[in-house]
Amino acid sequence: MAEKGVKVFGMWVSPMAIRVEWALWLKGVGYEYVDEDLANKSDALLRHNPVTKKVPVLVHDGKPIAESTIIVEYIDEAWKDGYPIMPADPYERAQARFWASFADDKCNAAIYLVFTETGEAQREVVREAQQCLKTLEKALEGKKFFGGDTVGYLDVVVGWYTYWLPIIQEVSGTSVVTHEELPLMKAWFDRFLAVDVVKETLPPRDKLLALNKARHEQLLST
Amino acid sequence: MAEKGVKVFGMWVSPMAIRVEWALWLKGVGYEYVDEDLANKSDALLRHNPVTKKVPVLVHDGKPIAESTIIVEYIDEAWKDGYPIMPADPYERAQARFWASFADDKCNAAIYLVFTETGEAQREVVREAQQCLKTLEKALEGKKFFGGDTVGYLDVVVGWYTYWLPIIQEVSGTSVVTHEELPLMKAWFDRFLAVDVVKETLPPRDKLLALNKARHEQLLST
Repeated sequence: MAEKGVKVFGMWVSPMAIRVEWALWLKGVGYEYVDEDLANKSDALLRHNPVTKKVPVLVHDGKPIAESTIIVEYIDEAWKDGYPIMPADPYERAQARFWASFADDKCNAAIYLVFTETGEAQREVVREAQQCLKTLEKALEGKKFFGGDTVGYLDVVVGWYTYWLPIIQEVSGTSVVTHEELPLMKAWFDRFLAVDVVKETLPPRDKLLALNKARHEQLLST
Repeated sequence: MAEKGVKVFGMWVSPMAIRVEWALWLKGVGYEYVDEDLANKSDALLRHNPVTKKVPVLVHDGKPIAESTIIVEYIDEAWKDGYPIMPADPYERAQARFWASFADDKCNAAIYLVFTETGEAQREVVREAQQCLKTLEKALEGKKFFGGDTVGYLDVVVGWYTYWLPIIQEVSGTSVVTHEELPLMKAWFDRFLAVDVVKETLPPRDKLLALNKARHEQLLST
């Protein structure tokens, strides 16, 4: 018997899971949220995503979908008369997908290393992360958001940078996104964080900071 | 001044570039093909794909698109009245994208290790590749092709296995896709290789085998 409605399996600390929540909020679609304990995943999560066993998972009328970017595209297609997340033009869609893939494959890896490296190695990965974001910044030129005048697919995919990256910087004692190095990106951080949907959904900063501090100490002590 | 028409920058040996050719053939779209020398990339390739500098790149009326899976989706959207590559249903589309991402992220890495490892380590990665393909095989259950009765997006994405994997097996002295271990996958190999568009576009087997033998020897000698 299929469950009716919309359910999101996430984890409050996950920057991938929040993409799904942002997409649903943009569409104005209500959902039930299940917060997973990644050390003790629920049977429901494992049943809905037996292949990768990861959050986020969206369950829509009993049918599960995994992988955050795929879920965001699904939400845009399943509620196609609502707020448009993907660009309408095929070429613009391809560009948005290209930059999303570039950010996930290249920039996220560099940002993760900023969190885990120290000393000279850290200075090097900070430069690499900046270089990656500098390349990504081209997709912002002449625009308010990556999606143009309003938040779109690429904003949803890289939006976590605006909230998680300052925390990573604080914990690791680095400065990656500065007005000097990445002026368009920095200005977009402020604009994105002022969007109502974003403000409504972000986890508490103090709690996120404390968890990331604890993780960082644990990483450096091993 | 934008170039008119459709141009593909590929490399005859690349299993990613042939995805773009298959998608265009399925749509019946003619194109100019530029074969790149990866040791000496053309200025045109570097201009069209300055970010990753990789093939394949599709240039449509002067506008470049990179990344094979993104290009295939673009082709389906830009020539939307032709042969349908993506499933029409949003949920089926999400499933096709999920399996494509799973294959590219997990199975391709395992298959690459079959090519590069030897001895006991190789036996282990053969088992891992089989396990990955066994998981992927679920997407074939009860169907002729991954796309159903006809070739679709996922067939285009993983179709290279049917031609490149037997060559990898021959060069590395392994058996990954056997009738005993992967019966649905093995039967799909034969069906996919019998598709006209596929037969028309595959590079010469003897040339591909010779190149892969040379690469394998070079890898093992370093």
